[in-house]
Amino acid sequence: MYELLETVNSPGDLKKLSIPELEVLAKELRAFIIDSVSKTGGHLSSSLGCVELAIAIHYVFDTPEDKLIWDVGHQAYAHKILTGRREQMAHLRQYQGLSGFPKITESEFDAFGTGHSSTSISAALGMAVSARERGLRDRHHVAVIGDGAMTAGMVFEAMNCAGDMKDIRLLVILNDNDCSISPPVGALSKHFFSLMSGRFYAQARESVKALVRPIPRLYDLTRKAEEYSKGIVAPASTLFEEFGLNYHGPIDGHDLKALIPLLKNMKELPGPLVLHIVTEKGHGYEPAAHDPTQYHGISPFDVKVGIQAKAHAKTYTEVFSDWLCEIGAKDKKVVGITPAMESGSGLTNFAKKFPDRFFDVAIAEQHAVTFAAGLAIDGMKPVCAIYSTFSQRAFDQIVHDVALQNLPVLFPLDRGGIVGADGATHHGAFDLSFLRCIPNLVIMAPSDENEARRMLYTGYKYNGPAVVRYPRGKGPGVEIVEEMQELPLGEARVMRQSGAEKEKRVAILAFGSMVYQLLPLAEELDATLVDMRFVKPLDKEIIKEAAENHDLIVTAEENVIQGGAGSACLEAIAEFGGAVPVLQVGIPDKFVEQGDNSSLFKECGLDNDSIREKILNRLKA
Amino acid sequence: MYELLETVNSPGDLKKLSIPELEVLAKELRAFIIDSVSKTGGHLSSSLGCVELAIAIHYVFDTPEDKLIWDVGHQAYAHKILTGRREQMAHLRQYQGLSGFPKITESEFDAFGTGHSSTSISAALGMAVSARERGLRDRHHVAVIGDGAMTAGMVFEAMNCAGDMKDIRLLVILNDNDCSISPPVGALSKHFFSLMSGRFYAQARESVKALVRPIPRLYDLTRKAEEYSKGIVAPASTLFEEFGLNYHGPIDGHDLKALIPLLKNMKELPGPLVLHIVTEKGHGYEPAAHDPTQYHGISPFDVKVGIQAKAHAKTYTEVFSDWLCEIGAKDKKVVGITPAMESGSGLTNFAKKFPDRFFDVAIAEQHAVTFAAGLAIDGMKPVCAIYSTFSQRAFDQIVHDVALQNLPVLFPLDRGGIVGADGATHHGAFDLSFLRCIPNLVIMAPSDENEARRMLYTGYKYNGPAVVRYPRGKGPGVEIVEEMQELPLGEARVMRQSGAEKEKRVAILAFGSMVYQLLPLAEELDATLVDMRFVKPLDKEIIKEAAENHDLIVTAEENVIQGGAGSACLEAIAEFGGAVPVLQVGIPDKFVEQGDNSSLFKECGLDNDSIREKILNRLKA
Repeated sequence: MYELLETVNSPGDLKKLSIPELEVLAKELRAFIIDSVSKTGGHLSSSLGCVELAIAIHYVFDTPEDKLIWDVGHQAYAHKILTGRREQMAHLRQYQGLSGFPKITESEFDAFGTGHSSTSISAALGMAVSARERGLRDRHHVAVIGDGAMTAGMVFEAMNCAGDMKDIRLLVILNDNDCSISPPVGALSKHFFSLMSGRFYAQARESVKALVRPIPRLYDLTRKAEEYSKGIVAPASTLFEEFGLNYHGPIDGHDLKALIPLLKNMKELPGPLVLHIVTEKGHGYEPAAHDPTQYHGISPFDVKVGIQAKAHAKTYTEVFSDWLCEIGAKDKKVVGITPAMESGSGLTNFAKKFPDRFFDVAIAEQHAVTFAAGLAIDGMKPVCAIYSTFSQRAFDQIVHDVALQNLPVLFPLDRGGIVGADGATHHGAFDLSFLRCIPNLVIMAPSDENEARRMLYTGYKYNGPAVVRYPRGKGPGVEIVEEMQELPLGEARVMRQSGAEKEKRVAILAFGSMVYQLLPLAEELDATLVDMRFVKPLDKEIIKEAAENHDLIVTAEENVIQGGAGSACLEAIAEFGGAVPVLQVGIPDKFVEQGDNSSLFKECGLDNDSIREKILNRLKA
Repeated sequence: MYELLETVNSPGDLKKLSIPELEVLAKELRAFIIDSVSKTGGHLSSSLGCVELAIAIHYVFDTPEDKLIWDVGHQAYAHKILTGRREQMAHLRQYQGLSGFPKITESEFDAFGTGHSSTSISAALGMAVSARERGLRDRHHVAVIGDGAMTAGMVFEAMNCAGDMKDIRLLVILNDNDCSISPPVGALSKHFFSLMSGRFYAQARESVKALVRPIPRLYDLTRKAEEYSKGIVAPASTLFEEFGLNYHGPIDGHDLKALIPLLKNMKELPGPLVLHIVTEKGHGYEPAAHDPTQYHGISPFDVKVGIQAKAHAKTYTEVFSDWLCEIGAKDKKVVGITPAMESGSGLTNFAKKFPDRFFDVAIAEQHAVTFAAGLAIDGMKPVCAIYSTFSQRAFDQIVHDVALQNLPVLFPLDRGGIVGADGATHHGAFDLSFLRCIPNLVIMAPSDENEARRMLYTGYKYNGPAVVRYPRGKGPGVEIVEEMQELPLGEARVMRQSGAEKEKRVAILAFGSMVYQLLPLAEELDATLVDMRFVKPLDKEIIKEAAENHDLIVTAEENVIQGGAGSACLEAIAEFGGAVPVLQVGIPDKFVEQGDNSSLFKECGLDNDSIREKILNRLKA
């Protein structure tokens, strides 16, 4: 079934093949990816779009000596398979298996680890300058970046820097598939779309034809593009050339006969280059090509029937989604903002109901936050939904534009804590630490769905910045109370009181997801269990009481211990002059890799067995 | 002397004047600013460049109803003076005086607080959308942004978003003075420069002439520009128009006769607009126009003679500068990187000596860090110097691109802690907290100049990411040892041992600048004093010893208490099962305003009198 593919264990094997053989290989590779991802889950659409590109790059360039960086990295499955990891694909994104992203410790062919978008040009430029300094004049540096990732500011920072350097070898391949995870937005996206028009093509062809001729399929592509072209055009070349990058394209990224000679020719050109290719997400698998968003990041599915919708209990994302629609209907000042995560963050329904008050600002977390600040300062009620891990990119804006001015922006932070298969680049492991140091910010962590709803409402009502941080996936499944109720700021709730004898009295101060998890253990140990609710402001009274009446305080959170919510409890104890032994349970001081949550919790000592053991050891000591 | 100026106490007074009177006013205003800043210190060059612009905007628009945002904000002195704060200028940047930046709590004319660059378009866009939603169709939103700030990624994120909205009122005024704090760099800057050429002007005039005619001074300006024009030209209009912004200009920003009618005309145009004006930093004060960098942010000086160079003891910046030149001479892999802070960060000498290995990447902190990661992964030794407060903007890149891959990037973090006159937007108050949660990162805080040198060397030798965080200004003045010595990772040093009696034994665990400050107090109280040196990894042994043999632990740092270095000590005590009272000394959980350091230390309870009192209270209790 994968006759040719099975002979390719490294790019060296690839180089022995003819272009017609490579075309067969592409077919096999595509079939292999569909089959493999249908079993493991993963990012299907983007990887299917990059099959020919991965083949062409490894065919033309001398990886790993030449450096290849896949921006974001979830489109790199073909690259992984071609670089000796075919068999490991069976363990893609699994605990101790293959990472879903390029990773330097996994393969020498992964020149730079990625995961968050828009870093590739900066990193490739660093390598290109390094090559210059080290006298490696012939080494090439290739960054593959999607049009969706082109909206993030750091890409422009990188291009501004690159365009200025004429004595380096840098090739940026713009993979134009007209799609980030959600449909593309913004002026630039329209701009890229317009590139496809015939009017522009006529111009662009002039500059490309010196390099490559004749490319029959490209004409087809262009004709097709013209059909749906909007007509108005500014050439893509301009944007890149204004930054000083030498532009080539656009070209059909699925056509090896066009791609390979063009790459070979461009290899000989000096200075920073851009090659603009056009590909189709999900190419070669009809259901994915038809709905690339649904097939972006997926669970295992049946190849023959595709992904089937299924009913299930509510996730925190859905709790947020419902709440936002409700509050949006009641208050016209509510505005929903997402940096390119409409569906993932649960904003789809709001967007449908209130299109005027919905803003997908593209992959642009920094702008999203300061834009929200501008809305808030003028009396609107912006709700700026960002994944915990991506909020890292807007840290300065949260501090400087929102919190310093004490503006009422509500931040629902999804994917706080361990996220599973996406791994080290995507866990929301640090947010409680890096947010807790910001003055004026209220930080809440719900222990269940109804608490999440109440906290969202509390944040909405609060006249200052507020974060509601919740985990990926489902909560414990409590019933949701229709009526929205505010929580008193900084008030924890006691879930149970210890009746244990002296020297065995344990109080667990738990945050967010740890509350329900620890309930059975608290019962087993007859420990006090407090749902802290607020990371900031803390319920210092309850902490003082707990510290004075127990022999051991346990803090528990799905965040790194360093500077996290447990440390906030330590600070509160220090403040009132207390002196009590404290056991901190949280993510240890390391980057956690991918895997199922239960394996990762165990590895981190966050499962109840590990926690029980630690508590009993402390009580013994 | 300021006859006309003294009659202007609000923009309303301005509107009563004729354009010739406004020209007189501009002269007086400029003289007033020079006089005032020569007494208080402040940002002179940029503010002198914006005198006419401030007059014209307040003359044409109806502030504060119309919203005016000054990007970065240090160019807004004329704005402050025209909006009723003339007399308060005597207390500019002083404790409890006028802020050096726009601040919403200071005046209703300050529509949005600024300080860090490149936020204005996002914020103005938020307000513009808010106006649309609130039905304020005629309200205007003006963002004034310098060409230097145009390199930061979030500007492009904002333009991408703005260009897509045709039903809002947004005017971006690009104040092109060919200068950020250091000389401008990057492809874009060259691009802006090229706009000045006559070839482009001929084109641009076509689009402007419908709006404004005839502008005699503009011709002069153009002729002058042509003299030094490089010839090659891509029109500025293209860049903005590719993002969907309607471009006008360039125009002489010191010519009220041109500026006012053009602004009036543009006020009537719909959709997002850009007006490109050309101004001269330091305009009207020859020494400042001649050397705008030296007159960027300054101390009081004599107007007649200008700033005089003076010999003084070494600042930490200079210690770093010397070290970098030395290590750069020894090791060709050392690369110096700065995001537009060449002089402020102490890279000027390195840049002169090793121009090939020096990179000013413009205001682009995100790119600076990932570019450094690309260099490091390929065996170079990047030294990426960023002010503490600006490192906030590269937080995600430090986590995701550097620390996750454990790459040897050295980050000298200048301006850690209280920075004085620049105030709330510029204090380095949070870095220990937001950096400490990052795995793999080594964080050092020197107590004196020689320690700083040793720590830089330690970071350079360490095969992973390292931060050396030091304060603005001078150290205690210890002698610098020529020979570079590595510090053992995570090893603190005991400065003195307590000989106090039981129940009075205090151990002070001090970080960075607090060590020498607390030495006399430690002697007075016969307390143990430890120079912790490392915020991460901590010297847990010394902390355990201290906790076991003292009655009170005091942690001291120039960082917020929340999640800071003191909390790291609490975590270490919790980890070994200790239970001892701890007093945390640090910046409290609020934003600290501007002022002299001694007033601010007192306000924060960081001075020795406050600390003594707190310790004695604890010992009594």
